[in-house]
Amino acid sequence: MSQSRLIYLPLGGAGEIGMNTYVYGVGPEDEERLIVVDLGVTFPDMDSTPGVDLIMADVEWLQERADRVEAVFITHAHEDHIGALAMLLPMIKAPVYARAFTAHLGRMKMEEAGLDPEDVITVSPWPETVTAGPFTVGFAPISHSIPESSGLVIDTPHGRVVHTGDFKLDRAPGVGEPFDDDMWADIAKDGVQALVCDSTNVFSPKPGRSESDLPDAIRDLVAAAPGMVAATTFASNIARLKTLAEAGQAAGRSIVLLGRAMRRMVTAGIETGVLTNFPTVVSPEDAASIPRENLMLLTSGSQGEHRAASAQLSRGKYLGLELKEGDTFLFSSKVIPGNERGVAKIVNAFSEMGVDVVDDSGGLYHVSGHANRPDLAFVHGLIKPKMLVPMHGEHRHLRAHVALGQESGLPGVIAPNGTMVDLTGDAPQIAGYVEAGRTYKDGIVLIGALDGIIRDRIRMALYGHVTVTAILEDDEPVGDPWCEVTGLPETGISRSPLVDVMEEDLSQFLNRADAKTLRNDDKLDEAMRRIVRKTAQDEIGKKPEVTIVLSRIS
Amino acid sequence: MSQSRLIYLPLGGAGEIGMNTYVYGVGPEDEERLIVVDLGVTFPDMDSTPGVDLIMADVEWLQERADRVEAVFITHAHEDHIGALAMLLPMIKAPVYARAFTAHLGRMKMEEAGLDPEDVITVSPWPETVTAGPFTVGFAPISHSIPESSGLVIDTPHGRVVHTGDFKLDRAPGVGEPFDDDMWADIAKDGVQALVCDSTNVFSPKPGRSESDLPDAIRDLVAAAPGMVAATTFASNIARLKTLAEAGQAAGRSIVLLGRAMRRMVTAGIETGVLTNFPTVVSPEDAASIPRENLMLLTSGSQGEHRAASAQLSRGKYLGLELKEGDTFLFSSKVIPGNERGVAKIVNAFSEMGVDVVDDSGGLYHVSGHANRPDLAFVHGLIKPKMLVPMHGEHRHLRAHVALGQESGLPGVIAPNGTMVDLTGDAPQIAGYVEAGRTYKDGIVLIGALDGIIRDRIRMALYGHVTVTAILEDDEPVGDPWCEVTGLPETGISRSPLVDVMEEDLSQFLNRADAKTLRNDDKLDEAMRRIVRKTAQDEIGKKPEVTIVLSRIS
Repeated sequence: MSQSRLIYLPLGGAGEIGMNTYVYGVGPEDEERLIVVDLGVTFPDMDSTPGVDLIMADVEWLQERADRVEAVFITHAHEDHIGALAMLLPMIKAPVYARAFTAHLGRMKMEEAGLDPEDVITVSPWPETVTAGPFTVGFAPISHSIPESSGLVIDTPHGRVVHTGDFKLDRAPGVGEPFDDDMWADIAKDGVQALVCDSTNVFSPKPGRSESDLPDAIRDLVAAAPGMVAATTFASNIARLKTLAEAGQAAGRSIVLLGRAMRRMVTAGIETGVLTNFPTVVSPEDAASIPRENLMLLTSGSQGEHRAASAQLSRGKYLGLELKEGDTFLFSSKVIPGNERGVAKIVNAFSEMGVDVVDDSGGLYHVSGHANRPDLAFVHGLIKPKMLVPMHGEHRHLRAHVALGQESGLPGVIAPNGTMVDLTGDAPQIAGYVEAGRTYKDGIVLIGALDGIIRDRIRMALYGHVTVTAILEDDEPVGDPWCEVTGLPETGISRSPLVDVMEEDLSQFLNRADAKTLRNDDKLDEAMRRIVRKTAQDEIGKKPEVTIVLSRIS
Repeated sequence: MSQSRLIYLPLGGAGEIGMNTYVYGVGPEDEERLIVVDLGVTFPDMDSTPGVDLIMADVEWLQERADRVEAVFITHAHEDHIGALAMLLPMIKAPVYARAFTAHLGRMKMEEAGLDPEDVITVSPWPETVTAGPFTVGFAPISHSIPESSGLVIDTPHGRVVHTGDFKLDRAPGVGEPFDDDMWADIAKDGVQALVCDSTNVFSPKPGRSESDLPDAIRDLVAAAPGMVAATTFASNIARLKTLAEAGQAAGRSIVLLGRAMRRMVTAGIETGVLTNFPTVVSPEDAASIPRENLMLLTSGSQGEHRAASAQLSRGKYLGLELKEGDTFLFSSKVIPGNERGVAKIVNAFSEMGVDVVDDSGGLYHVSGHANRPDLAFVHGLIKPKMLVPMHGEHRHLRAHVALGQESGLPGVIAPNGTMVDLTGDAPQIAGYVEAGRTYKDGIVLIGALDGIIRDRIRMALYGHVTVTAILEDDEPVGDPWCEVTGLPETGISRSPLVDVMEEDLSQFLNRADAKTLRNDDKLDEAMRRIVRKTAQDEIGKKPEVTIVLSRIS
């Protein structure tokens, strides 16, 4: 039997921002007992994943080793850390541990999926710990942009691992626990084998700012606004919601929560006790009878999501409320790369209404939830690990984070998804590679990223689709073949209808085809497909996707 | 007959950034003689225009009045000002005027489209003018990010209009003419009726920077780089290309132009005399025998374009050249919103190779080609027009630009595409609205944005496609109907193949259908479509696009 070792294996979140799914193992090679940290999603886009609802890690590797998985630990309740819980847990079959706020939202996901919410177990923060096989895991409070975020303190026979989860250095976060330098120094004092660390903001050169830098500016803005004020942010940023609501309250405004995510998060915050003294909220119906200068709406959809409350308001009346000339709309948020068009659409729609849109371009109304470059260097120095493993970043982030560690002599490794790293020695060693794919939730079905389904959809979007039907009786064509096109121009450069030209070319082929060809479905299919694509290329400059339907009757 | 008036009508470029297409008219209502300023394109995206090659203004309004169009004037050679020339000119049929560099590139477009390049006439800069009906138009040099950009001085019986085109205030642009305060003051001295003005950077609060701010930083970077250096920027930014190439030359590097656009633009610059003393260029073949630390590549594709040289290099060897660990890649450019993903993909690919990627996040290696907010205010004061009409901006830009004008008492109007504005009086008056649509170049065909073709493609991308074939003989079904699916999962929640479930449901329907239904193609089509969509919704949670093919034989 080989010697026991400590391994780290990212299945999601390393080489990308989002879809966090990490595995740790302890034991002899191929017999490691395993724990999973986070089961997150990432979001689809039209370019690469049209029609897909959610994207999560392919956990086949874990599924094949389900008997060795001791537990799942969720660091915090952002979707890119917890969003795949209900979809992937049935394949892994292990108890789930999280702190109260996270567990509350996790249980809701389980219930909605018809699973047992009791599989999600609430744990108290560090110094309390959970034992899972050879692992002892504690949830050490760490500041981020959602309540009860935790760094995991993972004790193993091979030493202590600190897995930061997402974090920032915020000593005054408003709602939730501040970054506790003393606690972390104490956790680190007997030596840390490996620091597995958030890399999101490694390219931000200045120290990060605190949530408590915002209330003054937001209060001034809301107080000075003449008409109705609406503000959006990430609904899970409970501290920000409270700051916004208190700014409204200070200006004599009643607060209205618009959007399912907003109501859900405020409710979760109150029920779990992380949100206290939230200003009184009025319903959209009751708001209708309040003068508009006495209203402040908190709306979901800061990323331009088409169906969220912010977008709805930008298109007109929503639940009886409507923004007008002289009103103010505040984005207390940043635009996540890729969402620029959706957000610009909302801003322009408000502009057409005469609404003043205020965003964070001046740096007054938003702070990031992630540690910037100097903050990361500070944490390296605070934890003093034997080795650094950057996570939660695209390849360029991981690379820059390793380089940052090297500046202070810390050995590191770039380990994108699927890279198994041995953390046992004095420096990280790559121990092997695992297929790290993606699974798509598509409607109500899970499909594989490489199944070809999405490739076919992208092709139809780019090139259109042609259905060709031909009937043969006793291996002789009956009548002419015909074509139906979807997503293609009606006429090409010959000025004749495209389907007429295709049908003519197909008829000529069928009438000239020899008996051997007419007997062979594969040959007919291939030949007719080639004719349709060639004709379309000549007529419209595109080679469409083709479905050939041959009906043989006798 | 009604009184003569001066009108302005944007058909593209107002309410968006890109696709610049503006019309001016002089004469009695509905009898105005017309000129067109710019015929630009904008670029498609997967979200709203999958498969489309280029997007341009719908010029039907001009086509119907082609006999009244006196001329087309092109301000500069960026694609969003000249890109639709060869596609739209045949509908407008008018002479085209531009300065030498612009005309050179315009003629190339005409030739490539099989049109007469002599339709594009080269004109000298202001104070020379062209007379076109009631208009006298001069090309006044103005600084931008491409040689020979011009503001148009448009004299009419109703006064002088200054149409800025795209511009910035650059008194030392390196290549090309500096912004000439005295010339513009002289143009304005007898009064300007209307200033029609670029709005792109109205949200940038600081004064813009000069192209001449860059050479020192770029030279230092290239001199300090250990291995091969590659740099990308917009190929049409001839001044930047020269700066980059000179930095390479100063570091003892041979220059290699990679990408068709790069070679084309440098050639155009040299042939038209705007680019002189460009360092000697070596071919990619010859570069193979030069040590990598003595090479500097200028590559096209600063926006992450998949087929451009930058992206090719990020995927490996390109024309025998390959970047490696320790080499440097410089983005001397900004990312145009919407292109973030494509650019990040290249950066991450280089990161995987170990190439150091340098971008403009520090503000050292790129300057914008557009006038910032204080620069716009300066130009308002320099030109002192009677009225301001912001153009080249999304609605939010136009709105902010009007507000900026109002700060100095300048009356303005928000006039998005299709808004006809009467410029005759003391303030702009909206005179009516025109349908302002979009035309797509799709393969080799022009299609309308509202033809439904793109809508169908988007639906297939989101929901997949099902072809159903059924054969009827004498109004009775022959055999069972069958389905072919594209872009859909093979199995749904029943775990049976999706097509089997659909075919079963369709068979049941056909076998139970009454004679009246079986005789009616429309009824059959509708009913079968509904069954397929309902079954798919139940099985996979999606309602696909459906093509029903009914074959009747007798």
